[in-house]
Amino acid sequence: MAITVAVAGASGYAGGEVLRLLLNHPAYLSGELEIGALTGHSTAGESVGALMPHLPQLRERRIVDSTVENLAGHDVVFLGLPHGHSAEIAKTLGEEVLVIDCAADFRLKDKAAWDAYYDGEYAGSWPYGIPEMPGHREAIAQSKRVAVAGCFPTTTTLGALPAVAKGLIEPDISVIAVTGVSGAGKKASVAQLGAETMGNVRAYKPGGSHRHTPEMVQNLSEYSQQGPVAVSFTPVLAPMSRGILATITAKLAPGVDAAAVRAAYEEFYADEPFCLVLPEGQQPETQNVVGSNMVHIQAHVDDITGRLIVTAALDNLCKGTAGGAVQCMNLALGLPETAGLPQAAVAP
Amino acid sequence: MAITVAVAGASGYAGGEVLRLLLNHPAYLSGELEIGALTGHSTAGESVGALMPHLPQLRERRIVDSTVENLAGHDVVFLGLPHGHSAEIAKTLGEEVLVIDCAADFRLKDKAAWDAYYDGEYAGSWPYGIPEMPGHREAIAQSKRVAVAGCFPTTTTLGALPAVAKGLIEPDISVIAVTGVSGAGKKASVAQLGAETMGNVRAYKPGGSHRHTPEMVQNLSEYSQQGPVAVSFTPVLAPMSRGILATITAKLAPGVDAAAVRAAYEEFYADEPFCLVLPEGQQPETQNVVGSNMVHIQAHVDDITGRLIVTAALDNLCKGTAGGAVQCMNLALGLPETAGLPQAAVAP
Amino acid sequence: MAITVAVAGASGYAGGEVLRLLLNHPAYLSGELEIGALTGHSTAGESVGALMPHLPQLRERRIVDSTVENLAGHDVVFLGLPHGHSAEIAKTLGEEVLVIDCAADFRLKDKAAWDAYYDGEYAGSWPYGIPEMPGHREAIAQSKRVAVAGCFPTTTTLGALPAVAKGLIEPDISVIAVTGVSGAGKKASVAQLGAETMGNVRAYKPGGSHRHTPEMVQNLSEYSQQGPVAVSFTPVLAPMSRGILATITAKLAPGVDAAAVRAAYEEFYADEPFCLVLPEGQQPETQNVVGSNMVHIQAHVDDITGRLIVTAALDNLCKGTAGGAVQCMNLALGLPETAGLPQAAVAP
Amino acid sequence: MAITVAVAGASGYAGGEVLRLLLNHPAYLSGELEIGALTGHSTAGESVGALMPHLPQLRERRIVDSTVENLAGHDVVFLGLPHGHSAEIAKTLGEEVLVIDCAADFRLKDKAAWDAYYDGEYAGSWPYGIPEMPGHREAIAQSKRVAVAGCFPTTTTLGALPAVAKGLIEPDISVIAVTGVSGAGKKASVAQLGAETMGNVRAYKPGGSHRHTPEMVQNLSEYSQQGPVAVSFTPVLAPMSRGILATITAKLAPGVDAAAVRAAYEEFYADEPFCLVLPEGQQPETQNVVGSNMVHIQAHVDDITGRLIVTAALDNLCKGTAGGAVQCMNLALGLPETAGLPQAAVAP
Repeated sequence: MAITVAVAGASGYAGGEVLRLLLNHPAYLSGELEIGALTGHSTAGESVGALMPHLPQLRERRIVDSTVENLAGHDVVFLGLPHGHSAEIAKTLGEEVLVIDCAADFRLKDKAAWDAYYDGEYAGSWPYGIPEMPGHREAIAQSKRVAVAGCFPTTTTLGALPAVAKGLIEPDISVIAVTGVSGAGKKASVAQLGAETMGNVRAYKPGGSHRHTPEMVQNLSEYSQQGPVAVSFTPVLAPMSRGILATITAKLAPGVDAAAVRAAYEEFYADEPFCLVLPEGQQPETQNVVGSNMVHIQAHVDDITGRLIVTAALDNLCKGTAGGAVQCMNLALGLPETAGLPQAAVAP
Repeated sequence: MAITVAVAGASGYAGGEVLRLLLNHPAYLSGELEIGALTGHSTAGESVGALMPHLPQLRERRIVDSTVENLAGHDVVFLGLPHGHSAEIAKTLGEEVLVIDCAADFRLKDKAAWDAYYDGEYAGSWPYGIPEMPGHREAIAQSKRVAVAGCFPTTTTLGALPAVAKGLIEPDISVIAVTGVSGAGKKASVAQLGAETMGNVRAYKPGGSHRHTPEMVQNLSEYSQQGPVAVSFTPVLAPMSRGILATITAKLAPGVDAAAVRAAYEEFYADEPFCLVLPEGQQPETQNVVGSNMVHIQAHVDDITGRLIVTAALDNLCKGTAGGAVQCMNLALGLPETAGLPQAAVAP
Repeated sequence: MAITVAVAGASGYAGGEVLRLLLNHPAYLSGELEIGALTGHSTAGESVGALMPHLPQLRERRIVDSTVENLAGHDVVFLGLPHGHSAEIAKTLGEEVLVIDCAADFRLKDKAAWDAYYDGEYAGSWPYGIPEMPGHREAIAQSKRVAVAGCFPTTTTLGALPAVAKGLIEPDISVIAVTGVSGAGKKASVAQLGAETMGNVRAYKPGGSHRHTPEMVQNLSEYSQQGPVAVSFTPVLAPMSRGILATITAKLAPGVDAAAVRAAYEEFYADEPFCLVLPEGQQPETQNVVGSNMVHIQAHVDDITGRLIVTAALDNLCKGTAGGAVQCMNLALGLPETAGLPQAAVAP
Repeated sequence: MAITVAVAGASGYAGGEVLRLLLNHPAYLSGELEIGALTGHSTAGESVGALMPHLPQLRERRIVDSTVENLAGHDVVFLGLPHGHSAEIAKTLGEEVLVIDCAADFRLKDKAAWDAYYDGEYAGSWPYGIPEMPGHREAIAQSKRVAVAGCFPTTTTLGALPAVAKGLIEPDISVIAVTGVSGAGKKASVAQLGAETMGNVRAYKPGGSHRHTPEMVQNLSEYSQQGPVAVSFTPVLAPMSRGILATITAKLAPGVDAAAVRAAYEEFYADEPFCLVLPEGQQPETQNVVGSNMVHIQAHVDDITGRLIVTAALDNLCKGTAGGAVQCMNLALGLPETAGLPQAAVAP
């Protein structure tokens, strides 16, 4: 019998991208996986054809309400809801249901961090959905609950992890991450109008004020041998739909040189299908990962100032959200981890 | 034994898109199809990783010269060369080799039309690669030579064909087609710089001066019951990488109303997997076809002026070039026509 | 004593552009013109610095409510309100006040046209604000009420007028106008999000369904010697902030050739400071008019199909709205018509 | 008698922007300043109308060769040439001629820094053209030679200077500067094609490898009380034509808090017409400075990591190049410093 998959928040950008990936997934194409309920809140009752014309296979489907009844009876439920709504829904889903949450509700292990950055009650944490973090792949494979990582934390974690884990830098990093506008979601807003975002670049929530900051601290500190890692994070909005380019800088630890850095990065990701350390001198570009599940990474040593400058690019909606979510689904279902996840990007 | 495929002009945009599609093609994933020689001219000797980092699976490959030796011994050869180079190469490839030309060299059946628009000697014509044109699917399936259609002619032909074939309009149409910048190809140019194309829209080669015009005339006239179709075509360059939106206008034939138009369009494409006639009132958007092999079409009747206004959107690099080419390959090899060709697009 | 100018709807895009132009106006720089009340509705109480940081000179100012009291006592009042609000405010302003309306409320002379396209009661018409239309400059100069033209009608009218007025084409034209996203105004909307407009082109309100259509019909018919001009108008949204490029096509009248067309266009605009007929073969580009009050025009004859193809580019917020408004203010105040209106654009 | 101004390299982006500003300069509008020879290299003989249609007032002019003869006899000569060509031309111009060099040839005071970053012989240094650097305004006013600052150094210097000069941070800063594509100049290039830059963000020349790095070190070290300032600089290319947003981070000096930072920034720029310290919590946006000569600055204190995060935005072609150049011209000619330099930007 086929695996049935529901998507809550199906008409948002995360939900739509999950569907795009599922529609090209070999398990779907062979009939082993079926797309079940597509739920939403304000869009309930509307057709997929009207809401997401880029998914013509589903155009006759309708969005239904995000109720217990509509989500019940599926083997897998993706939650692509605004932060703060996943916990309640998750409670209504049986333990045998694989629940993959694209929101922040279950990402933080530390209640104090949650309270400092989020409203609402702390709901606990689930296995964290970056399989490339040592130990996480196994935990995800054995869990029925997965908290997909945020888009900025995925970029920063995968960019900085080799350096942190191998002690190549001081545990005090600065991250400036340029992001496309789809990260803000599909909701009406003056600040996110085309006229306010085209031909325009602006930083927002500088320093540690963005909610993704504690997630980065948590991820990197987990592997640091020098105590907790301090992260100063500033996102920058750029005029493109998709993509994140994070530039991560930190002081090199004493005695570390470019050769050691390169060796560490190449070794760390040697067996990872979705992490590509680029050849020396070649910089990541977001267009080279759009639509794919890849992270392209470069690690540059600035000898003059004694800094490491890591650049990492991914597609915020794919590897940064829905691609990461499907990767976790694959693991948790025992499917090939890379199934349905493109390595080749839609460029130019 | 696996089918082997070579791509000449592999480092251009058309060649890169053929490769992107092949890398996700089920025949490639199952090992039935292998990617052989990747040839180029100015890029010969360079690695795919340096030239097309969006295709990480091929990053260790090198572009080799477009010589007879390098292209020999493949079952399929895609030609993604500048106009005027295909004929010579095609001559060196055996009759048993499936040759799919993405250039204009073999598209025009009329030597006079060729002479009016192209330099160099007329080389004849091959079966023309729009399977959705009645009769063409069968011709392509039986041929070892296919001339893939131009991106503008594909958009215009599929947009106007139902109206022309069913005599709904006068055989005198005007086409304004907005295109993304990748249509100009991957060659250094001041006019195509980012700084000259972002935040900028301009028409070029207005009226009948663009080389794609005679191709549109040929295609539509083939099905016209009212004699040759006159086409006034003006392309407009817009600040996006991919996508064409053609707006096609013509006077309605006497007695034709909106209901007749809708019925004709829906019937004409009822069984076509890649042609979607949108519900009444919904306009095509290029973002909904980017990365896919779809054409989205709307046909609107302007009662006040007695005109038909058809809008049609496709991805110039995919359905408009490489997707059309792979669709023809599928047909000519006896594979499922839709294999490896996404219907879902990368949006937003 | 200085001329005092109020702007109603000051925090919208039209209002902001009026202010940008006034701040660089020689009468403002010399102290002869003063910027008075800046009014708004939802933004009342907010500072200009927060709402329009691109106008630093006014950053300490606050938006006040659009009340009779706040608008009273000025010599000039610009109305940059949503359609349907101008009539009521205008009634409260004395006859000696110069009122320049950027909305559609007073553009149409024909009540039937108004009723067909707009809600609300017909309020009559004011002198129409395109000074380049023969006779209008004089009417504007003598009026205390001016209805500024819509952005699409300005482009189409100035592009087609020489051909219509001199009988060079049949009175049945088709217009496809590509526009930047600022034309939709500064209001929250999903369809106008950056993520829904970048990398995307779409037509909307095709045929005669856009409200600007009857305005074009009115303008061109005023000068036609062949009876009313039929206009089929389709706007297309492109990923740029500012700019309109209209492509206007029509059948040539019998016996008209390229030389006659060129002579007519050059003669028609020979003395117009803001209308530039480009040399043969050079196409208008929107980037060459951004921030300026210019219209760049080309008229191409397609001999094969017997059509005229006129392309016209302007900045929808400047010449298409606020620049046109300031030009009218200059005329009505007896200032030099070109004062404060740039001919040079901000390119690239 | 009018001041005569020549522009060498007039058809490049810097030269074109100098001309745009001069055409709106009150001294030009009043006839006190005349635009003389416009010289170029590869464009010599072409008309301004063909090369820069956005400057219609000059459309009949022709570009002439950059020879001694053509440049002789002017009171002011702007040099907008590729790096390495200014020295030779400057030698041929009399000491009484005001020469304003937009290239890097005379920016660096330290021959070793020059040798480390540039080819060709070191030519010495001229008074450095950022009037807002204490002492520089006076030096520029008394000189006939000015080296206009680079676009990145202008942004970084003005962003970091208050913090450095007042000892608020440790003298070790990291700069990630996002730039529009016009910074690469108007020369044919595959990497700068629209198709390679739209929908794409990439870093380049990371760490200290960009030539603008030593210029930043020189500027900031001039005011540092803690010895030379180390600068790790990484530029990032974003899909917009104009604009730079620099994010500058550094460790706070002991005891420095947010109030001290705000007071320092506001005081430092209190009298500067082109430097705007935004209210607390408001971030600079590049669209708010496009076409203007402003720098918008915010200084944020991240208490958690003890860092200062300064963001600064300007228009790379205006304040970052041509606007800075005209500002220096104004000073050196004894004209009002702000003459012809807009504070209001073309937004959206």
